[in-house]
Amino acid sequence: MVDTASRTENPAAEANVAPVPGKAADAPVPAPPAQRPTESRIDVEALGRQLLGTWADIRLEARARAASPELQRIEGQTMAEHRERVLGQLKLLVDSGAVQKAFPKSLGGQDDHGGNIAAFEELVIADPSLQIKSGVQWGLFGAAVLHLGTAKHHEKYLPAIMNLDVPGAFAMTETGHGSDVASIGTTATYDETTEEFVIHTPFRGAWKDYLGNAALHGKDAVVFAQLITKGVNHGVHAFYVHLRDADGEFLPGVGGEDDGLKGGLNGIDNGRLHFTDVRIPRENLLNRYGDVAADGTYSSPIESPGRRFFTMLGTLVQGRVSLDGASTSAAAMALTIAITYGTQRRQFNGASEVDEEVLLDYQRHQRRLLPRLATVYAQTFAHDEFLVKFDAVFSGKAASDADREDLETIAAALKPLSTWHALDTLQEAREACGGAGFLAENRLVGLRQDLDIYVTFEGDNNVLLQLVAKRLLTDYSKQFKGAGFGALARYAVGQTADKAFHGSGLRRLGQNLADLGSTARSVSELRDADTQHALLADRVETMIAEVAGRLNEARKLPKVEAAAVFNRNQNELIEAGRAHGELLQWEAFTRGLEAVTDPGTKRVLTWVRDLFGLGLVERHLAWYLVNGRLSPQRAQALSAYIDRLLERLRPHALDLVNAFGYTDEHLRAKIASGAELERQDEARAYYAEQRRAGTLPVPEKSLKGKKQR
Amino acid sequence: MVDTASRTENPAAEANVAPVPGKAADAPVPAPPAQRPTESRIDVEALGRQLLGTWADIRLEARARAASPELQRIEGQTMAEHRERVLGQLKLLVDSGAVQKAFPKSLGGQDDHGGNIAAFEELVIADPSLQIKSGVQWGLFGAAVLHLGTAKHHEKYLPAIMNLDVPGAFAMTETGHGSDVASIGTTATYDETTEEFVIHTPFRGAWKDYLGNAALHGKDAVVFAQLITKGVNHGVHAFYVHLRDADGEFLPGVGGEDDGLKGGLNGIDNGRLHFTDVRIPRENLLNRYGDVAADGTYSSPIESPGRRFFTMLGTLVQGRVSLDGASTSAAAMALTIAITYGTQRRQFNGASEVDEEVLLDYQRHQRRLLPRLATVYAQTFAHDEFLVKFDAVFSGKAASDADREDLETIAAALKPLSTWHALDTLQEAREACGGAGFLAENRLVGLRQDLDIYVTFEGDNNVLLQLVAKRLLTDYSKQFKGAGFGALARYAVGQTADKAFHGSGLRRLGQNLADLGSTARSVSELRDADTQHALLADRVETMIAEVAGRLNEARKLPKVEAAAVFNRNQNELIEAGRAHGELLQWEAFTRGLEAVTDPGTKRVLTWVRDLFGLGLVERHLAWYLVNGRLSPQRAQALSAYIDRLLERLRPHALDLVNAFGYTDEHLRAKIASGAELERQDEARAYYAEQRRAGTLPVPEKSLKGKKQR
Repeated sequence: MVDTASRTENPAAEANVAPVPGKAADAPVPAPPAQRPTESRIDVEALGRQLLGTWADIRLEARARAASPELQRIEGQTMAEHRERVLGQLKLLVDSGAVQKAFPKSLGGQDDHGGNIAAFEELVIADPSLQIKSGVQWGLFGAAVLHLGTAKHHEKYLPAIMNLDVPGAFAMTETGHGSDVASIGTTATYDETTEEFVIHTPFRGAWKDYLGNAALHGKDAVVFAQLITKGVNHGVHAFYVHLRDADGEFLPGVGGEDDGLKGGLNGIDNGRLHFTDVRIPRENLLNRYGDVAADGTYSSPIESPGRRFFTMLGTLVQGRVSLDGASTSAAAMALTIAITYGTQRRQFNGASEVDEEVLLDYQRHQRRLLPRLATVYAQTFAHDEFLVKFDAVFSGKAASDADREDLETIAAALKPLSTWHALDTLQEAREACGGAGFLAENRLVGLRQDLDIYVTFEGDNNVLLQLVAKRLLTDYSKQFKGAGFGALARYAVGQTADKAFHGSGLRRLGQNLADLGSTARSVSELRDADTQHALLADRVETMIAEVAGRLNEARKLPKVEAAAVFNRNQNELIEAGRAHGELLQWEAFTRGLEAVTDPGTKRVLTWVRDLFGLGLVERHLAWYLVNGRLSPQRAQALSAYIDRLLERLRPHALDLVNAFGYTDEHLRAKIASGAELERQDEARAYYAEQRRAGTLPVPEKSLKGKKQR
Repeated sequence: MVDTASRTENPAAEANVAPVPGKAADAPVPAPPAQRPTESRIDVEALGRQLLGTWADIRLEARARAASPELQRIEGQTMAEHRERVLGQLKLLVDSGAVQKAFPKSLGGQDDHGGNIAAFEELVIADPSLQIKSGVQWGLFGAAVLHLGTAKHHEKYLPAIMNLDVPGAFAMTETGHGSDVASIGTTATYDETTEEFVIHTPFRGAWKDYLGNAALHGKDAVVFAQLITKGVNHGVHAFYVHLRDADGEFLPGVGGEDDGLKGGLNGIDNGRLHFTDVRIPRENLLNRYGDVAADGTYSSPIESPGRRFFTMLGTLVQGRVSLDGASTSAAAMALTIAITYGTQRRQFNGASEVDEEVLLDYQRHQRRLLPRLATVYAQTFAHDEFLVKFDAVFSGKAASDADREDLETIAAALKPLSTWHALDTLQEAREACGGAGFLAENRLVGLRQDLDIYVTFEGDNNVLLQLVAKRLLTDYSKQFKGAGFGALARYAVGQTADKAFHGSGLRRLGQNLADLGSTARSVSELRDADTQHALLADRVETMIAEVAGRLNEARKLPKVEAAAVFNRNQNELIEAGRAHGELLQWEAFTRGLEAVTDPGTKRVLTWVRDLFGLGLVERHLAWYLVNGRLSPQRAQALSAYIDRLLERLRPHALDLVNAFGYTDEHLRAKIASGAELERQDEARAYYAEQRRAGTLPVPEKSLKGKKQR
């Protein structure tokens, strides 16, 4: 493995590139940041505090814990060693009282749902395997007992779950059904003669799969199965099932397999489970939302089977909340590493004959890292609002059906964006650090491997975004309830940018955008928050209205053809879901910005918000042009302004990552430790001394130049 | 780890999404592929043969070898085990006569440069570590001796390199200098009193780093250092240096470190080396392009130091050639796995009440996989042309300076695109396979981990694309030689789409594009190859002309300011380099298409080519709109036509991946083995039998429906 980029780099410099100014063509740069006017400075400490959000102290405590080596990943461990280590770390968390927050006070918990997630997310700093294995034990297995069970289950099972006496699996996903839980094949058939449920796996595709704790450590499991009684299938319900005896051997009727090595998260023992007529007492049905009497009569507080299913699964939204937060943290760490390195690492001579240029002074390097940094800022603010909403719903402070639905939609919109962004950012950071980025000692590759699965678990990202769009379609159609389909169709056809509509996630436009593309307003307008908002909101609304119009026309078609019409709009629908998520992030960033009081911080952070907002517009520029929302001239001005923002933000890049507040114990990346700066300083001192002493060999090239003169 | 996407999937179905037609809203699809008219069929065998390219038989032989388990990676091995295994595999390659092709016939080789690379690339199927470690030994270490040394070095060193008696390192990259080889710090100072070179590492940043074979197995190395004699630095030259004694201990003055665990390629022992006044005989200078006489007088057949450096490094272009080929193979394997799975895996009910839909029938799934497949086709054709060019240069058949420069430019354009595309495709394939894609047993994550470093080694992709753009700038400026800067500036300012210009990589436009955006031509024109070519070529030319104009204006500025102007254009320059590479791929695809004789194959492959070409236009749509090359109406028509192409190609997707010709022994992915189809068939048979026997429990929902009626 070698890095030989410049094999042809220098030759190009002398390949007589006519329009390029001399040597500077190689790798030119603006004046170094130290010499630039930087009248605005960030108050790093105050900003850092704001970024920690609503549960700042809990996060700081959790970060202090994550700085402890005993909770951290050891690179290069075998899968078996890593699994054992993480299990041991879970016990350490129990001992330090770190995992009980979300459980009832009556059982030693604190009923603190938001604080619990905040603390849990920070574990990603120590080891994502630790975060996710904790999530399996307490966020899924334990939470299922808590939210789907009733008092008898809480008393019976939760203490041993909380203290890890009983590690358990959350047995929902099947080999044959990942994203479509309603169609799982496992059955729980009630036998009224013995008052038992018979848990059964009817075919290979119905094996439970990818379950943390299933391969080795799980003693019990919450198993999701089709509840069948008196010949009727009442849909998916959860059952408490014993898996293994005291020696760790499977109980009769239970079987399974190890999922083996994975692309990451190898500290977790994922595995498969199957059940052959395993009998469990009737009481093992977690019966909060559906129960079966001794005689086999089914009852539920929720009439509609669909709504019941929705409600049961909705209690488990915290997985998505925590992935949003952890992904944002991982991206923030990646950028802290890459930007720190980028301000120390030098490569190629630019304007100076003597010193090489710092990587982050190159425009391309700024383009690669700074917009991603702006996105992390947006995500950080959005995540805190998301967590506040989650806490309100789960604490009961604001837990109406509408609140729950909004929470679901926010989760489905934000989790895909932040998990994808984490992978994208970790990869860009790794590439921006070159070969050093590929070494495990610099953390980036390990984090990326672990976070890879975040984009498809707890809801495949594409499926989630489609869900968001369907919700927007529903909201959209509600406006026209009773107006008849004709009115809707006409509205959709005539939909233009200045038509605003309400909706759970949609916001009314503050201004008429219709002429934005045609008038010759200045770039300064793009800096206007209302303009940015209008551009982003208009896109969501227009996309939804257009798809709604097309779907509405298909209503009268036969089922197969109507389905085909929906399918032909699927890609655009998913993109509309993404656009909605981007809008939510922008709005949260803007609200966060309003809370900033220090003028210097506010100025710089406004540039960051503008970079985020205008970066979104630039990413979707073709849409804005095709739909006449921006003129070609304004589109060019927008890209040019983004380049100016990058130059403005360059001197603040280090402050912006330092505000995330990660210490060397969190980052644990050698290239971000200052070692690179030491190396660069040593090299420059070496050459300076040689120049001073007159011992630096003369370059052949300059010698020839002299001869010619 | 659980997959709970559909927690809220079904609920959405009943969330009263007004404009959406009933149940079909959930996951509708067009009619299954079997029922579609598919009058055109691909001749898979003939196409497969064509895809194998110029060295088809050598590839088939190499693939047969790669199908052998003893050459394949064992997932989950420790780094130490993996390193030992790969070293052993290199010996197996020697024994089977697989590695000698590129070496001189006089030494038992075959002087077959193209065939050598073709065979070498296919090793990626067995294990990328095997590919790259072979590349280090024979493609870098051995090739440096061959191409930079002279007869005495060939006779003395090559036999032991070829038979692996002497594993060696290619010690070019330093910790402080990856992309800028010309600035490395290691010195080789000639001491005429002893007729020796003194190899020395002056500071920590000048340690050699990331070198394969350096941590453990390397006995010798080719070390690149600044050649200093009589007080003059003649630039970077290569020296043959002994590293370790027979016991594997470093020789006096030599030291090093293990790079340790990496993000992938852990079968290779990358490490660091440093030298403290290590003395080597004068003859150890690999002296083909520069020599030092006993008295210290330097001489070179190449006068210009820059051109000399360029020539020396140019001999090592084969690394880039082989990465382009191996990346294309890896992406082809990934798509074979994901598309095979996508045609078997079912999820969600669509139009049918009974059967769930196959993943690849969803529009989004098609959008995710089929355009990437089209790109792999383009890359496959482009790579074969690239390899033919490489062979012509290295065999001497066409080895003028212009040929060598063109080869360098093609390498710098294609390697970035294919290596990035491999990562992108491996990731999308992994996500398209959900949780199963994350399991090591399905290959995708392992391949992605290994190929990650391909985007920054053998030339950082961004640096390479900038190099391409600089070459285009040079070609551009040559047209105006003698015309004076004023003419150039006026030309650049007045540059419009119909101005064509020559250049090594640029092609003359066949038609005037000026009115393409304004006239109301039909979609059919977009299918026209000339139109596609004109759109793609025009973009490269216009971008280069615009940047050239801006740089030209900056010529008169002081150096620092001129450098700043260049830097402000860096991002666009790199994008122009990318656009040039895309054009090269499109052209190669189109030439490949011309060679197809079977009408059915030709028809389908034309759709694939159109998907590739129009996909590129869609990706850069904002540029075409801003620059008035496409009207908004035509832009919309273009996206709609791409959607139609996806529907047309859907029935041929399996044929298209099967034509790559990978067997189960190559893919080794359980999910692509037919296991998923078996599972799906078993599940459907189970439900069919239950329905037949009348034992399928009645869904509560339908029961309620009946009661209400």
